[in-house]
Amino acid sequence: MFAKRGKIDKLVYQIYPKFFRKTYMEELIGNVLVAQSGGPTAVINASLAGVIDEALNHDCIEEIYGGLNGIEGILNEQIIDLASESQQTVRGLRYTPGSALGTCRYKLKSEQDYAKLLEVFKKYNVRFFFYIGGNDSQDTTNKIAKYAEDKGYALRAIGIPKTVDNDLPMTDHCPGYGSVVKYLCATIRQLALDHESMGNHDLVSIVEVMGRDAGWIAAGTSIAKRRGELQDPPHIILLPEVAFNAEYFIAQVQECLKKNKYCLVVASEGLSDANGNYVAAGENVQDSFGHSKLGGVGEYLEDLVSKSLAGVKARSSKIGHVQRAGAICASQTDSNEAYMCGQVAVRAAVEGNSGKMVALVRGDTDKYSCETVLTDLDQVANGVKHFPEAWIGEDKISINYQFNKYILPLMQGEVQVPYENGMPAFVRLAKVKAEPQA
Amino acid sequence: MFAKRGKIDKLVYQIYPKFFRKTYMEELIGNVLVAQSGGPTAVINASLAGVIDEALNHDCIEEIYGGLNGIEGILNEQIIDLASESQQTVRGLRYTPGSALGTCRYKLKSEQDYAKLLEVFKKYNVRFFFYIGGNDSQDTTNKIAKYAEDKGYALRAIGIPKTVDNDLPMTDHCPGYGSVVKYLCATIRQLALDHESMGNHDLVSIVEVMGRDAGWIAAGTSIAKRRGELQDPPHIILLPEVAFNAEYFIAQVQECLKKNKYCLVVASEGLSDANGNYVAAGENVQDSFGHSKLGGVGEYLEDLVSKSLAGVKARSSKIGHVQRAGAICASQTDSNEAYMCGQVAVRAAVEGNSGKMVALVRGDTDKYSCETVLTDLDQVANGVKHFPEAWIGEDKISINYQFNKYILPLMQGEVQVPYENGMPAFVRLAKVKAEPQA
Repeated sequence: MFAKRGKIDKLVYQIYPKFFRKTYMEELIGNVLVAQSGGPTAVINASLAGVIDEALNHDCIEEIYGGLNGIEGILNEQIIDLASESQQTVRGLRYTPGSALGTCRYKLKSEQDYAKLLEVFKKYNVRFFFYIGGNDSQDTTNKIAKYAEDKGYALRAIGIPKTVDNDLPMTDHCPGYGSVVKYLCATIRQLALDHESMGNHDLVSIVEVMGRDAGWIAAGTSIAKRRGELQDPPHIILLPEVAFNAEYFIAQVQECLKKNKYCLVVASEGLSDANGNYVAAGENVQDSFGHSKLGGVGEYLEDLVSKSLAGVKARSSKIGHVQRAGAICASQTDSNEAYMCGQVAVRAAVEGNSGKMVALVRGDTDKYSCETVLTDLDQVANGVKHFPEAWIGEDKISINYQFNKYILPLMQGEVQVPYENGMPAFVRLAKVKAEPQA
Repeated sequence: MFAKRGKIDKLVYQIYPKFFRKTYMEELIGNVLVAQSGGPTAVINASLAGVIDEALNHDCIEEIYGGLNGIEGILNEQIIDLASESQQTVRGLRYTPGSALGTCRYKLKSEQDYAKLLEVFKKYNVRFFFYIGGNDSQDTTNKIAKYAEDKGYALRAIGIPKTVDNDLPMTDHCPGYGSVVKYLCATIRQLALDHESMGNHDLVSIVEVMGRDAGWIAAGTSIAKRRGELQDPPHIILLPEVAFNAEYFIAQVQECLKKNKYCLVVASEGLSDANGNYVAAGENVQDSFGHSKLGGVGEYLEDLVSKSLAGVKARSSKIGHVQRAGAICASQTDSNEAYMCGQVAVRAAVEGNSGKMVALVRGDTDKYSCETVLTDLDQVANGVKHFPEAWIGEDKISINYQFNKYILPLMQGEVQVPYENGMPAFVRLAKVKAEPQA
């Protein structure tokens, strides 16, 4: 907030806040452009709603534009007028999964890309840019902020965090995470009752969940275990942070089957061996950021169990992308925080910030509270926050109680989704094309 | 109801119903034994609650026993006292998935099995037997009824329908079906929004759903398509009733990708080729009824698409057993009907029926209504009701509008599941062991 002249600004702000705001903060007048990037979450649209609602409060903001399909669509001038969307629709974004604006996994490649982008920003007089996304997207936001500054184009670019993976550094947790954990915990509790029913034969059930580099999602499901009932599932949790050892795994499965008659395993898609190779990398397919296509950990472990343990039934399920779109079981806390991040981003930009990401900070008190701070995008971009070793159980296949205090508050409350004709009724944007201003 | 002497009984009943009831219907005094069999559903416990609640209303019923793990557990005298369960728990059965009593896939094999069973029935003075299950279980109920009759043991055995597959003959639909369809439709609508977001590359998403012999479940998801929006998913539905043709399938996928940029395919696990062989039969594993272990249709189709269409991303998800345990998105109508089937079964037995199954009949009026009738187990046992050909679209990959009227009423209303600590709080039976009476 006091980037330009540091301490003097701060002094001015403390003595004459009104003068400060007039002089520095509202000096920039122009349009908002908001876009979404990377994999969607159940609450990414709540952040979008937060941006739209807050943008309407500021006189320095004239138009509210949405960029379709992230940076890739913006390069192609796929820009819509968000202010013309109905209030009902904007309200509906708070319970609609997916990325309402569309998303991309595009990496800005060349000087040309940046130049084209700036051209589009100028054409639409974009002065406030908000990018809702994960690690890669925050890197993009950072680069755009720097490029604009280099070229002397007044732009305030703020990143809004989003990722089910919860692996963004510099933030206590990430909007999207509480909901994916809530959805998977409900899934596992339901699955557990189904498996318990089939009590008369040994069953190993493997649930493959998302998480390429960090095991936050898999670890999150540990909370589905009912308190004090140690034999409740999930019985075995496999994190990317722990090198997979097939023999040890099979031994643990056998141990569990002795006690429980069935064994529910939660496995991260990014499970890796001691050499750091993915246990189940797909064919040699990579996305534009160089990440391998993953999948098949569930089937891999199912095979392994079948071959290693005679007479044991093995089953796997691959929840797939619906886990990050599970709005019918999304966390109200998560949704509220996602909305708040959108609001705060707009206020931060209006107040003169750029090159920052909104981060969440947890209060120190026993009762959960959550506030926001701005963090430098330099410190966020491309970093990965792994699941803390201190929270992994000694047996390496369980999560210890210290994690409970972290995860529980994030999944409280249920987002209410309206049903129509027996099915969830989500909203879609009207997507009215915006007209360039220049 | 008038099995013994036919027309004379009926006449007696019409003239002196009170006398009739006293003489014939309540002549049998003894205990109830209820058990569950086969794969669980989201509402199978609602039927159990219906049996327990109704049994308390009849003086001729002394004890209410539950058999654990179906017929297999009963053979081992795993019998619990259901009357001692708390009201809270019995109430909770109406939103708890899985089979609260446990289930089995055991087929009564020998004369010895039957003899042992009858011995247990005698020991616990079981005079009213209720078996909640699908095709195989109804066959078992039928055989038990006949065996008891042969041996001159007064027993009234009634089948209560249950199966997510909806393939039981002689009933308009089956408790469990409305809920699995509702859960999958919510899943697909959420998945659709996720896929729509990723708009800038061709994506084929395959969702593998249950359904070994009949495509009711896969077909049910067709209702997730929003009305009048033909390009809404699911775009391609693959039923076991339609022989799979890889070339035709790939052509349809290409057609769809031209229009939609993504193609959502719902595939039944029991998808078969023109020779009737499963497209994705697992290793040569069979269950005790001789059914093949299935799985992998999703992965199979994912491979097929990847190999056939260059540059197209293919993904699959295998929802697995949670689809039949999806209580957080279960149909209230389905749950109510499941409960009613339990109640009606008890009344039918008290009134003197045996060797029957409770079946659901739909009213003729435009407004949906549902009543019950009793149908002979002989006509139900081991039959399979396929998805009607008349409801399959001409292209063989869609379901036509005639099906809408059938499916929509079955998925109306949402079962309310209580949440505790951010997670669904289901109940478990206390399972107090019953004492034999003899």
